Amino acid sequence: MDSIHYQERLQKCTQLMKAAGMDTLLLTKPANMTYLTGDGRLCAFAMITQSGKVALGVPKTDMEDVKHLAHFDHIVGFEDEVGMIHSIAHYFELFGIREGVVGLEYTFLTQSMMGMLTHPHGKPEKVTVKDGTSILSQLRLVKDAEEIEHIRAAAKVADAGMKAAVEALKSGLTESQVAAEAEYAIRQSGAEEFYRTYVSSGPRTNIAHGLPTLRKIQPDDLVMIDIHPIVNGYSADLCRTVCAGKPTAEQGAAYDIYLKAQQATIAKVKAGVGMVELEETFHEIIKDAGHGEHIFGPLIHGTGLEFEEAPLPPGHAFFHGEKESPPLPANVAIAVGNCGLYPGSFGVRVEDTVVVAEKGPLVLTNYPRRIEK
Amino acid sequence: MDSIHYQERLQKCTQLMKAAGMDTLLLTKPANMTYLTGDGRLCAFAMITQSGKVALGVPKTDMEDVKHLAHFDHIVGFEDEVGMIHSIAHYFELFGIREGVVGLEYTFLTQSMMGMLTHPHGKPEKVTVKDGTSILSQLRLVKDAEEIEHIRAAAKVADAGMKAAVEALKSGLTESQVAAEAEYAIRQSGAEEFYRTYVSSGPRTNIAHGLPTLRKIQPDDLVMIDIHPIVNGYSADLCRTVCAGKPTAEQGAAYDIYLKAQQATIAKVKAGVGMVELEETFHEIIKDAGHGEHIFGPLIHGTGLEFEEAPLPPGHAFFHGEKESPPLPANVAIAVGNCGLYPGSFGVRVEDTVVVAEKGPLVLTNYPRRIEK
Repeated sequence: MDSIHYQERLQKCTQLMKAAGMDTLLLTKPANMTYLTGDGRLCAFAMITQSGKVALGVPKTDMEDVKHLAHFDHIVGFEDEVGMIHSIAHYFELFGIREGVVGLEYTFLTQSMMGMLTHPHGKPEKVTVKDGTSILSQLRLVKDAEEIEHIRAAAKVADAGMKAAVEALKSGLTESQVAAEAEYAIRQSGAEEFYRTYVSSGPRTNIAHGLPTLRKIQPDDLVMIDIHPIVNGYSADLCRTVCAGKPTAEQGAAYDIYLKAQQATIAKVKAGVGMVELEETFHEIIKDAGHGEHIFGPLIHGTGLEFEEAPLPPGHAFFHGEKESPPLPANVAIAVGNCGLYPGSFGVRVEDTVVVAEKGPLVLTNYPRRIEK
Repeated sequence: MDSIHYQERLQKCTQLMKAAGMDTLLLTKPANMTYLTGDGRLCAFAMITQSGKVALGVPKTDMEDVKHLAHFDHIVGFEDEVGMIHSIAHYFELFGIREGVVGLEYTFLTQSMMGMLTHPHGKPEKVTVKDGTSILSQLRLVKDAEEIEHIRAAAKVADAGMKAAVEALKSGLTESQVAAEAEYAIRQSGAEEFYRTYVSSGPRTNIAHGLPTLRKIQPDDLVMIDIHPIVNGYSADLCRTVCAGKPTAEQGAAYDIYLKAQQATIAKVKAGVGMVELEETFHEIIKDAGHGEHIFGPLIHGTGLEFEEAPLPPGHAFFHGEKESPPLPANVAIAVGNCGLYPGSFGVRVEDTVVVAEKGPLVLTNYPRRIEK
């Protein structure tokens, strides 16, 4: 992407910083650094000033690599944690910042990382800290055309990964082996990376976060497969529930209700729709079918540089340090169907990546939605 | 594992809590919950009282699954974040805890998670918080026979994963495709999961954390492959640097120096050795060869329920919220070689999983250590 894009992002960022009374941002979350500078990596930081200067700190081994990838005004390499703290001090000094407010990523930083970034040998005593999460979430909310192309590419890879997993699915395989098929296809189809794959089977389809285990798929098991490939830094989110053999009538009925609710929700996606309206559409159909008490989890989340990012539904947003989303503007990318239906001994879930277009939904993941293979 | 083991662990835990003046532990890190209860999962918590009671909170969907896996005295299921906070309040009430100190995992909790766990609707006002990280690290430091068998199994899977990646390695493949070969073999060989795979090639072998990209391997590229399979919850850590074709004389020489230093360090591993002594052994050989300024990163870290855990070398430990390690007791599992040699345009690194035995090292990863395929 050309540097003009980063200039524009930086300009919007400094406007939001001014409005929030934030003099400096000190970022360490790779997705946030990538959005503003073009490069994000572990054990590195980006300091953004209200006047729009970008100062990077990276492991000294990474200096040349970062110079080829990132847009910045200053860069220093450090050897270890002490060096990192000193380079933060160096930048506060360089920019003449002795007081004011520095924004930190409260939804990303652990207590011990907070301690490192605000160490008295780094941060000037009179500089106070505040949560800067929502500034970056606001910036990243609406995707530009290039970002949507990346998410579209990730969605195509997700379809290929799901196809490989479902076609390989048979009793006797472990959940981990099913994940292996999806992940192998994901990397072969052009993803540089993926977020953790979830595969759960049989009674395990009833749990909220089913990471794969060595459980062997049984002949008529339901299997839930949830994948998140990353292409050019952007991800898509795709989940299907498929039966290894023949589903029971109860399972088939639950699946049909779920799919009907998910599809009705997707049909309502368009610019200006509210997150709560979408949730209500979904919940009403499930409730009308008598399964109201079996719904679990927030229905929608954003997807982009992270497979799970803002916007989040109101309650969930609050507890995850995000602001409540306004009515969805055009060109927000969301995953619809994160919320499962868990009638007791099994669960069903179907999740797709959808872009909010002006007049309706643009569904990017298209692997067939059916419970039988 | 039988419940007697968990009783013993719990007893040791309460002793450490008493010594640290900690009345309650509130855990959310899956590895820590697994160690004390037999089950650890996302979006769940375990409260441990000084009298040895274990109270779990899990998503309501997960109740049955957790009951089959965990050892506990109390369990509640919740629907969402508000329900989680209320179940924390419920347990403080149940145990009659109105004041005192609760230990939280400062090296795991983000600021926003801290906010949720210490929400005034959950934690009583007079209960204060403190970092409980080192209690769990101390407990988990020395592995029992069963844990070592799990790490041994993970190490075998790591060898199989490395074999698959190195044998498939050829110019034209992307770094991501090389990772795919390792990961596929890891899951097929009996791992339920793995921590993120690192694959970097050519000039990218010079960076500190080389996550795979779509860069295509060139004919004579060095390729660094770093893998971390999980078997029965335990992981091993294995890294090799291999040339896709013919290494240059400079690369070969750097590799030989590195391997000599790593092997000399491993040879010194035995009960009673200090972390600093091991680091010095390694650094001296590299310095004597004239590459002192090209060493980067901490040399050693523990491995177990996490692929990177305590013990850590002193400086690194401090900044990561861990206590300095005493001389290494027998039956600690460590990865030796996390620290790379980066002479400028390329890097080399060889890392193995080693158990500290009474009289010497027990090397668990054994894939051939050579730069040419």
